[in-house]
Amino acid sequence: MNLTDTTHFNCTIDAGVARISLDRPERKNPLTFDSYAELRDWFRALPYSDAVHAVVIVPNGGNFSSGGDVHDIIGPLTRMNMKELLAFTRMTGDLVKAMVNCGKPVISAVDGICAGAGAIIAMASDLRIAAPEAKVAFLFNRVGLAGCDMGACAMLPRIVGQGRAAELLYLGRSLGAEEGERWGFFNRLVARDALEEEALAMAQRIAQGPTFANSMTKTMLAQEWSMSLEQAIEAEAQAQAICMQGNDFRRAYEAFVAKEKPVFEGD
Amino acid sequence: MNLTDTTHFNCTIDAGVARISLDRPERKNPLTFDSYAELRDWFRALPYSDAVHAVVIVPNGGNFSSGGDVHDIIGPLTRMNMKELLAFTRMTGDLVKAMVNCGKPVISAVDGICAGAGAIIAMASDLRIAAPEAKVAFLFNRVGLAGCDMGACAMLPRIVGQGRAAELLYLGRSLGAEEGERWGFFNRLVARDALEEEALAMAQRIAQGPTFANSMTKTMLAQEWSMSLEQAIEAEAQAQAICMQGNDFRRAYEAFVAKEKPVFEGD
Amino acid sequence: MNLTDTTHFNCTIDAGVARISLDRPERKNPLTFDSYAELRDWFRALPYSDAVHAVVIVPNGGNFSSGGDVHDIIGPLTRMNMKELLAFTRMTGDLVKAMVNCGKPVISAVDGICAGAGAIIAMASDLRIAAPEAKVAFLFNRVGLAGCDMGACAMLPRIVGQGRAAELLYLGRSLGAEEGERWGFFNRLVARDALEEEALAMAQRIAQGPTFANSMTKTMLAQEWSMSLEQAIEAEAQAQAICMQGNDFRRAYEAFVAKEKPVFEGD
Repeated sequence: MNLTDTTHFNCTIDAGVARISLDRPERKNPLTFDSYAELRDWFRALPYSDAVHAVVIVPNGGNFSSGGDVHDIIGPLTRMNMKELLAFTRMTGDLVKAMVNCGKPVISAVDGICAGAGAIIAMASDLRIAAPEAKVAFLFNRVGLAGCDMGACAMLPRIVGQGRAAELLYLGRSLGAEEGERWGFFNRLVARDALEEEALAMAQRIAQGPTFANSMTKTMLAQEWSMSLEQAIEAEAQAQAICMQGNDFRRAYEAFVAKEKPVFEGD
Repeated sequence: MNLTDTTHFNCTIDAGVARISLDRPERKNPLTFDSYAELRDWFRALPYSDAVHAVVIVPNGGNFSSGGDVHDIIGPLTRMNMKELLAFTRMTGDLVKAMVNCGKPVISAVDGICAGAGAIIAMASDLRIAAPEAKVAFLFNRVGLAGCDMGACAMLPRIVGQGRAAELLYLGRSLGAEEGERWGFFNRLVARDALEEEALAMAQRIAQGPTFANSMTKTMLAQEWSMSLEQAIEAEAQAQAICMQGNDFRRAYEAFVAKEKPVFEGD
Repeated sequence: MNLTDTTHFNCTIDAGVARISLDRPERKNPLTFDSYAELRDWFRALPYSDAVHAVVIVPNGGNFSSGGDVHDIIGPLTRMNMKELLAFTRMTGDLVKAMVNCGKPVISAVDGICAGAGAIIAMASDLRIAAPEAKVAFLFNRVGLAGCDMGACAMLPRIVGQGRAAELLYLGRSLGAEEGERWGFFNRLVARDALEEEALAMAQRIAQGPTFANSMTKTMLAQEWSMSLEQAIEAEAQAQAICMQGNDFRRAYEAFVAKEKPVFEGD
């Protein structure tokens, strides 16, 4: 798969950072069956690429994403049988699994509308920064659905706490940027004009780090989700021992001794 | 079971919202063996009722609850054998299990004293709002007991974080309303005079939503507690597919197309 | 093991509180192979001691700890084979396991530099207080390693939330004291001059409480980490029933009836 040869969303790659955005800004970048599937395949291809070490998902036309398109997705779903519905919900869940397992840190830069599946994509990212104008809505119950969409009942409580997650999922209300930062949903707020630049700078910093080790961090953050403490500590002993045999660890040590800045190469 | 025919606590039902309060305000509404058991049975009956879609637990006489009554509960407990003690702690745990499995969102409106088992009832609710005068105390270690009461060592860290939960459980100190909001224990603060009204309004809003889907949200928030991420995402794919075959999903879509406000019927 | 007879770190015991600090303040108290091993053995001996009911880890010379010593640890690690590396990472993980399983609440009083394995020791404590000058850095990726060190990918998200933990682990940046308090990493901030005194006072308060019950709280906070809610509630029913047969519970009740302050004896 050529990672920049995408049809249903935009993708460019520069200096190890993939910059992607959803398309159709005039409709606030809704997801379609096609863009869901292509995003899933794109994130599934990512572990095999050495050209990308971090991903940034940016707004388009002042909005992040309005979620599943009412006409292209919601309408058809209301006419599907259970086999078809489950195929759809598994596809959307597979996108989250692919993001979690892609091996590269993902940063969402959120502006304007970030709703439904758009909010899920932000939630499933590793880091989230936002413009003050960002509004995040897990609005599933406002369209007659449950809050348990694409992993939200598992992931959102781990990010903002069980009580706040429950409120967002039961009320479907918008979470503002400032509140989102206070709750730990957003890592930081950045003025709208500087948002994309800041997200790309964070990604560059990560991409210039020890990328093999970063990939292990991402793997273990997901792996340890439901381990006991004892299991997690043993799992980390093994994972970190693997990283200690990597060349980036030696490079950092040698740079320190030579009073230089380490240059990581990701092996 | 007639849900409003309660002996040891107060219950009224209006427009799908059950409003309950503990009794004996002159003693700050302590729990007794009888009220524990009746509350457990009441929440156990709730999944089978279509008359209730949300529950609000309100203060009585300016206090939420002082917890297990010193004379009616603590005294007798000090004279019990292990079989009797375990029967008691299992009964109290069964109340929490019944709240978690009742299928309807529960909102606690906290004012004044909210201590011991009272704090647990607030914690085991889905949402919590408070008056500025509220004081919450997981005071178990002040009466010679462990912090692990009715699920507190599992649930409190998920709401406020592991470090803050540990502080409350080891020190037994009071958590104030403002601090509680900052930590995510309280979803919001409301002036004492408006507290009950606000809680009932939130409950009404939830009860007018897609109640079958809300019930699925509640189920999955509990089910996914200890699942792996991959398991949680598959579980949600199934749960949401079930909701997508519900009529409320179709109603929301048709209302959107007709530019109307959806009217949910809970099927 | 004589708990105050330590070679590679400082330890005194007074009124049930052990006060420990790392050594070599002129190098900001780095860890060495020897101090890791001795700390592990010390915490492993703790469950068997009735002389200690709480532990305070204090700064030395204005710093908490700079983590693994570059010359004594990092250099040798870059030359080890996998068997040796895994022996090392398991030893460091064993220190965290020993802290978690020691049966006594541990309070870290953080000032100045608290980096790498030093940050892990603070994280693995039950409570953390800090001076405004404290800087905490999970800087593993800055030395070419993964964030999954000694349990960090499991424990840090439970303390500060998944999004904030990911930021600290991917960027390796310093967490300031004020930010750390806001995130729930620090339980409170205390002026540098009063830091140690405040930590010792908290520990004294805990040590004068029902220490057998406190120990059960610590055990259950770890045990319930990966249980289902139902399992956790049953586990607490058993654990609390054990504590209800303890004498401290009876003492608290009798003191209440006599309108006195209870004196706990830890049985």
